[in-house]
Amino acid sequence: MLRTHTCGELRLDHVNQEVTLSGWVQRVRNKGGLVWVDLRDRYGITQLIFEEGSTDKALLEKAAELGREFVVQATGTVIERTSKNDKIPTGSIEIKATDLQVLNAAKVPPFIIEDDTDGGEELRMKYRYLDLRRNVVREKLHLRHRMMQETRKYMDAEHFMEVETPVLIKSTPEGARDFVVPSRVNPGEFYALPQSPQTFKQLLMVSGFDRYFQIVKCFRDEDLRADRQPEFTQIDCEMAFVEQEDILSTFEGLTKHLFANVKGVELEEVKRMTYADAMKYYGNDKPDLRFDMKFVELNELAQGKGFGIFDNAELVVGICAKGAAEYTRKQLDAITDWVKRPQIGAKGMVYAKYNADGTIKSTVDKFYSQEDLQAWASAFEAEPGDLMLILSGDANKVRKQLSELRLKMGEDLGLRDRNVFKPLWVVDFPLLEWDEETERYHAMHHPFTSPKKEDIPLLDSDPGAVRANAYDLVINGVEIGGGSIRIHDRATQQLMFKHLGFTDEEAQKQFGFLMEAFEYGAPPHGGIAFGFDRLCAIFGGSDSIRDYIAFPKNNSGRDVMIDSPSSIAPEQLGELSIQLNIKK
Amino acid sequence: MLRTHTCGELRLDHVNQEVTLSGWVQRVRNKGGLVWVDLRDRYGITQLIFEEGSTDKALLEKAAELGREFVVQATGTVIERTSKNDKIPTGSIEIKATDLQVLNAAKVPPFIIEDDTDGGEELRMKYRYLDLRRNVVREKLHLRHRMMQETRKYMDAEHFMEVETPVLIKSTPEGARDFVVPSRVNPGEFYALPQSPQTFKQLLMVSGFDRYFQIVKCFRDEDLRADRQPEFTQIDCEMAFVEQEDILSTFEGLTKHLFANVKGVELEEVKRMTYADAMKYYGNDKPDLRFDMKFVELNELAQGKGFGIFDNAELVVGICAKGAAEYTRKQLDAITDWVKRPQIGAKGMVYAKYNADGTIKSTVDKFYSQEDLQAWASAFEAEPGDLMLILSGDANKVRKQLSELRLKMGEDLGLRDRNVFKPLWVVDFPLLEWDEETERYHAMHHPFTSPKKEDIPLLDSDPGAVRANAYDLVINGVEIGGGSIRIHDRATQQLMFKHLGFTDEEAQKQFGFLMEAFEYGAPPHGGIAFGFDRLCAIFGGSDSIRDYIAFPKNNSGRDVMIDSPSSIAPEQLGELSIQLNIKK
Repeated sequence: MLRTHTCGELRLDHVNQEVTLSGWVQRVRNKGGLVWVDLRDRYGITQLIFEEGSTDKALLEKAAELGREFVVQATGTVIERTSKNDKIPTGSIEIKATDLQVLNAAKVPPFIIEDDTDGGEELRMKYRYLDLRRNVVREKLHLRHRMMQETRKYMDAEHFMEVETPVLIKSTPEGARDFVVPSRVNPGEFYALPQSPQTFKQLLMVSGFDRYFQIVKCFRDEDLRADRQPEFTQIDCEMAFVEQEDILSTFEGLTKHLFANVKGVELEEVKRMTYADAMKYYGNDKPDLRFDMKFVELNELAQGKGFGIFDNAELVVGICAKGAAEYTRKQLDAITDWVKRPQIGAKGMVYAKYNADGTIKSTVDKFYSQEDLQAWASAFEAEPGDLMLILSGDANKVRKQLSELRLKMGEDLGLRDRNVFKPLWVVDFPLLEWDEETERYHAMHHPFTSPKKEDIPLLDSDPGAVRANAYDLVINGVEIGGGSIRIHDRATQQLMFKHLGFTDEEAQKQFGFLMEAFEYGAPPHGGIAFGFDRLCAIFGGSDSIRDYIAFPKNNSGRDVMIDSPSSIAPEQLGELSIQLNIKK
Repeated sequence: MLRTHTCGELRLDHVNQEVTLSGWVQRVRNKGGLVWVDLRDRYGITQLIFEEGSTDKALLEKAAELGREFVVQATGTVIERTSKNDKIPTGSIEIKATDLQVLNAAKVPPFIIEDDTDGGEELRMKYRYLDLRRNVVREKLHLRHRMMQETRKYMDAEHFMEVETPVLIKSTPEGARDFVVPSRVNPGEFYALPQSPQTFKQLLMVSGFDRYFQIVKCFRDEDLRADRQPEFTQIDCEMAFVEQEDILSTFEGLTKHLFANVKGVELEEVKRMTYADAMKYYGNDKPDLRFDMKFVELNELAQGKGFGIFDNAELVVGICAKGAAEYTRKQLDAITDWVKRPQIGAKGMVYAKYNADGTIKSTVDKFYSQEDLQAWASAFEAEPGDLMLILSGDANKVRKQLSELRLKMGEDLGLRDRNVFKPLWVVDFPLLEWDEETERYHAMHHPFTSPKKEDIPLLDSDPGAVRANAYDLVINGVEIGGGSIRIHDRATQQLMFKHLGFTDEEAQKQFGFLMEAFEYGAPPHGGIAFGFDRLCAIFGGSDSIRDYIAFPKNNSGRDVMIDSPSSIAPEQLGELSIQLNIKK
C-alpha cells in the first residue's frame, strides 16, 4: 500500500511512530516559516507540518507549492499538536513530514470541493467525479451502502434467497414504456429492459423458492421529473404460502431493522389505513402522518345557507391548522393565491379564524352566523387560536387540492420534521382505475394483483369498486414500497386480462408462459417492492433521489459527464438490422 | 402463513403437536387402506398419513386422488413413525392428517421432478420454472445466494463500498460488441449496456471512494458458446493507493473466505506464475495445477537425428504421463486420432513408453537409439511405467495442442478431481497482442491497464514485449478473475490510445471524460473483476455456468420460456426514431 495508515485513524497513541499517508491536498497554509498541509482521504483529514530550520529546505518549498487537490504521499513522524483541533478525530496530532511525493498534480477544480460548494447543478453533474469528493455527497452514497448491507442481512436471516433475474427480457405493452434492445442474432426482434422482475419472481414462487429477494435495477422510459430516473433500484421480494398479514409483518420488520441499524431510530408501530380512509381524510393515498390536520367534510353544516359556491359544490371540506389564527390578512391572501395557482387549481378558499376571545371571524360572515361557525369549529374540534381553511368543488379535485394545502400548512407550521418518521400501511387499494384517455380500466397496481374474494362478483357490475389485496408502505407522505397478493390460478388471471381489455390471443401471446406456469402447481403467493433510491433519500432527509445515485442522469435522460446517449456507427446499426428514422 | 411449520423442520420433539404444512405432492402411495403422501417444499419432505378407519372417509379418498405436484395444505398431528427413514431429517415422524385442502391442482409435468429427470435440455429450459423445482437445480442457486452474501460480508469488512454504476451508458468501439438501447428522448442516439463498469469504477477512485465493489450484471453481444451468456455477473472491485501486491493479497483473502465459509475448504496458498512460464510449461495462460505434467522441450535432444518431422519443427515438446505406459496400442492410436482432430489440429504424435524392464519403446525407434530415448526420459524425469507424448511444429500452435492433450491425459488418468482446488495467480501478462485480422495491436486486458515502468521504452521498439501490471486468478484451469493496476495520468493514457491506433480525436471523443478526470488529482489505483457465474460453477463442481443462472438464455441468446427476444409494435419503433432494415 502507498500508505501505512489512512488520514482518519491517527491519534495520540500513535505519537512518535513513523507513518506514510496518501491523499488529496485540502488546504495549504504558509506562515512565518511554517507550512501546514491538510491531507484528506475518505476516512478523514490529517495535518502535515513542515518547519523552517528542522525541515529540509527543498521539502519545505515543495510543500508550500502544493495546489488544492494534488494527490500526495507523505512520510513523517506523528507528533502531538500544540494547539489541538477538537472538531476532527485526528485533531490532537500532526505529522512532522520527512518526505513528500506528488503522486499526481491537479488542475484547479471547476468548483470548490467543500461541504458548501460554489458549483451549480449542471457543472457538478458534468464533473460528478469531483462532486463525489465532497464529504456531504459521499456520505449519502455511504448511507446507501449501509442500507444495502443491512437489507441483505435481514433478508438472509429471514431465509429469503437472493436470485438474479434477467435484464434482457420481453417487451409488453402493459404498464410504462419499455426500453428495448435490438437483437443482432434474431434480426427484427428486441429484448426489453425490465420495469420490474414481476413475472420472474412469480415464477420463482411456482418453482418452490418460497422466499425470494433482490436489490435490482429497473428501467422505465418515462418522461422524467426531478425524482424519477430512467434506471432506478428496487428491493424486490416475493413469498409463497402467505396472506397479506404475513407480508406486512415481514416488511415492517425490514423497515424497523433498517431504521434501528442504519439510523439508530426505534421505529414506532406501523399504522394501518384503508385507501378509502386515506382519500377521505387526507385526499391522498400516501398521507404524511407527521401531523394530524385531518379533512373535515362540511356539506351538512355549510350548505343551504345561501352561499352559492358551497351550495353548488359536490364537496365542502376543510382542515384545521392548530394555532394558526395569528396568520395575518396578507399571509392568508398569499395562501389563497397559492391554492389558486394552476398547479393546485382551486377556485378560491374560505377561512375562519377562531379568535382568542372565542369569536370566529370568517371570509363568509355574511352567509353564516356565529352559531353556524361554532358548529364548524366543533366539527373541526377547533379551539381558540386555530385557523380553519375550507375548499369546495368537485369531490376528487377538491380532495387533491386540499391535500396539497394540508402539506403546505404542515410545512409552514414546522410540522414536517425530517428527523421524525411516521410509517403507514395503506391497504385495500382499488383493483382497477378508469383511464379517461384510453376509455378503459387499467390495473391500479398491475395485472397480477388479486382482487378481494368477496369483491369478485362486482367485477362485472361495478369494476371500479373491486378492492385488491394490495398495500403500500408510506413514510412521511412518500410511497416507499408497494405490493400485493397475486393471482395464482389461470382462470382468475384470464378473467383479469379480460377486464383489462386484452383479447385471449393478446393475453396468451404476452403472458401465456405465466398462465401456463399457474397450471403446474402454483402456490398462493405475494410480494412487495421498495423503491430503494427513495428509501435512501428518506433516510438521508432529502427530497431528491438523485443525491443518492452515484451517476444520475439529468431530466433529459442524459449523463452529461460521459455524454450519453450518443450516436453509434452505421455498421453497428446494420448489424442490428435497424436504421434511423428521425422525423423532422 | 398457510403453514405452521415447513416440510423440513419437524422432529420427534414435535410429536403430539398439531401442525399445518403446505407444499407440493411429491408422491402418493396407496396400500391396504393406508395412503401416504410425501409433501415437499424448499426445506424438505414430510410424510402425511391417512388411514382407513381412523381417517374420515372423504379425506382418505381426497388424499388417494392427489396428483403429482398438486399444491396442498394439510393439518394434522405429528406422530412417531413405526418404520423410520433415516435418509431424511424428518424421517422419524409423520403427520396423521385431519384436514387437507387442495390449494392448486397441477397438470402432469412434462418431465419428472426428481434429482434424476427424464427431461431433455430444451424442454427443461422451456419449463425452467419446473426444472428449478428439482433439488439439485435449486441447490445450485442456493450456493450462488450464499456466495453473494459471503462476498459482501468480506468486502464490507474490508471497507469496500458497494456502489451501483449505471446500466445505460455510452457505446465504445473498443472491446466486444455492445448491446445498445435507442433513446426516445434523444432521437438517433443510443445508450449501451456496460461490458463492465470499468470507467465508472476508475472515476470512483478519482472521487476518493478508496475501495469500491459491486456484484453487477454485464453484457456482451458476442457469439455464444456453452459457457457464455449475453448477460453475466461480475464481482467488480477497485482500490486506490495500491500496488499489485495489495490487490493480490486482498483478493486471495476473498477467495479463501469464500472457500472456507461456503465450502468448508481451507484453501492452500495461491501460487504465482508469470504468463511467460505458464505458456512455456503449460501452453496456456490458465494452467490446471491439480496435476503436474509440465511441458519439456526436446529440440536439443531430438533434432538432428534424421527424423525430418522433428528436424523441421520450430518446437519439439512433450509431456510425461505418470504410470501410463500400460496404455494399449489401441488406446494410443485413439489419442493420436484425438490430437489430429481439426479442433486440436496436430499433424501427428510421437510416443515413447518407459517399460518396466527399463527399456524404452517409441514410435520413432528407427531414428533414435535407446541412449537417445534414455536422454529424453531424463529430460522428462520419467520412470519405468511412464508414457512420454511428444508433439512438434510451429511453437505457438504446438503449445496450444499439447495443452489440450495435457488436459485430456489429466482427465483420463483421473487427476482432475472436482473436490481438489488449485488456485494460481498468473502475472506479468503482455500489455498488447497482435491481431492478425485488423493488423494492429489490441490491449490484451483493456486500454486502461498500465505497462510495467521498466518496459515503457519498449513501447516503440518492441510493443509485443511490453509487460503489463496485469494478473489473472486461475482455479483448476479456469480463469476466475482478472485485473490490473491502471494508468492514472493523462499522458500515459494518451500514449496507450496512440499505440492502440486511436487518433487523438477518437480518444478524446470516447474517453475524453476519463482523461480529463485524470487531470484533477487521480490517485494510483487498480482492481479486479471475478466472473461470478464461473466462480459459482467451480464451487459447485460444474463445467457449465448456465446451471448457476436462474433464467439463462440458449445459444441463440433466446429465453425460450418467455419467448424473447420478440417483435415490437411499429408505433414503438416510431417513437424510438428507428425502423427495421432486415437483409434477406
